[in-house]
Amino acid sequence: MASGGVKVLGSNYSPFVNRVQIALNLKSVEFEFIHENLNPKSELLLKSNPVHKKIPVLIHDDKCICESSVIVQYIDEAWTGNGLSILPSDPYDRAVARFWAAYYDDKLSPMVKELRSVKEEERAALVERIDEGLGLLEEAFVKCSKGKAYFGGDHIGYIDIVIGSSFGWITAMEKMSGKKLIEEAKTPGLFGWVDKFLSNDAVKDVIPTTEMFLQLLAKMQAKPTAS
Amino acid sequence: MASGGVKVLGSNYSPFVNRVQIALNLKSVEFEFIHENLNPKSELLLKSNPVHKKIPVLIHDDKCICESSVIVQYIDEAWTGNGLSILPSDPYDRAVARFWAAYYDDKLSPMVKELRSVKEEERAALVERIDEGLGLLEEAFVKCSKGKAYFGGDHIGYIDIVIGSSFGWITAMEKMSGKKLIEEAKTPGLFGWVDKFLSNDAVKDVIPTTEMFLQLLAKMQAKPTAS
Repeated sequence: MASGGVKVLGSNYSPFVNRVQIALNLKSVEFEFIHENLNPKSELLLKSNPVHKKIPVLIHDDKCICESSVIVQYIDEAWTGNGLSILPSDPYDRAVARFWAAYYDDKLSPMVKELRSVKEEERAALVERIDEGLGLLEEAFVKCSKGKAYFGGDHIGYIDIVIGSSFGWITAMEKMSGKKLIEEAKTPGLFGWVDKFLSNDAVKDVIPTTEMFLQLLAKMQAKPTAS
Repeated sequence: MASGGVKVLGSNYSPFVNRVQIALNLKSVEFEFIHENLNPKSELLLKSNPVHKKIPVLIHDDKCICESSVIVQYIDEAWTGNGLSILPSDPYDRAVARFWAAYYDDKLSPMVKELRSVKEEERAALVERIDEGLGLLEEAFVKCSKGKAYFGGDHIGYIDIVIGSSFGWITAMEKMSGKKLIEEAKTPGLFGWVDKFLSNDAVKDVIPTTEMFLQLLAKMQAKPTAS
């Protein structure tokens, strides 16, 4: 087991891992990134996350914390010194943040993933459901941001991290398919937010560029499948 | 919209609603229980949880909080006055509590629900996977409880509430099928914990008795299905 300090076990292309990197950056916590290629899973991963055997894992002074949303909340609670909170301080605002983060993970994100494999005749209905979800998220953005740049207001907060971390992949998917998921006319708040989030100092060197995602996808498609 | 005070919109037979009732009892918060029979869904439910349209909803001074795990954390953070914390105070212990609560909701609980509809030839494999999950939970119980009665130690905490609230239904299912899910020989910690949890002062008048669950099931089975 890796000893002492702060380590993140993960892959740069995982939005779940990116959540953890962004949260640590926001808190100005230095950490070592240990690349896990998952094929095969390393002994460190199997030891540090024996239940799910998945990335990311945060290793803090030899304690292992798993599951990205649990890790982000841990980071918020373990490093309180620099004055910046990932979750808001008011209990109701905290509940709202947890609600929309869970909505994204449990409802909206699975629908967006389904876009890659949906049958052509079912695509229109799926897109309609996604549009409804994005409409709800737009309303949440307007309420939470109160005219500021992020769901968290002036700075990136919990909803920004949980949802925004997927927008490397989503932007690459938009580029590949030629279809925009977030349209300025339909969800102007979210449309502006995506750019601000991806270019934020805590984010811009964490989430791979669209070009990098497209190269990875091309490489995956070119790989012969095992027989 | 209901005005002022603390209200819970729900049904007594929902473990998710029970989580909220137990959390409020632990914090000694008085509340009004508004029965929602879901058929059809009331206007109050549709207004107070427009995204999921599901129970439970906590209405606190006209603010609506949805999703049981979000609500339980809200209760812990909104009522801090009586000295009893639902989540532990240490950030790592809080992460551990959130991890096992999510493990139950995302992994173990869906498997237990599947028991009701699984094909006979797939039952043995499912039971084996459930037993593995219960084994992990037993280890977590030993670590978290540190020899005390509950996952939360001397008093009921977050893991207890999230997992324990299902044990009204689970105990009734055990009675109906004649098969024990939690066996003393395999998971002695959990075996003792179930009884202590269900007879705790904050719980015993919240979760319906096995007899009540069996009567409800009999009523549901006797009801002719709509044609």
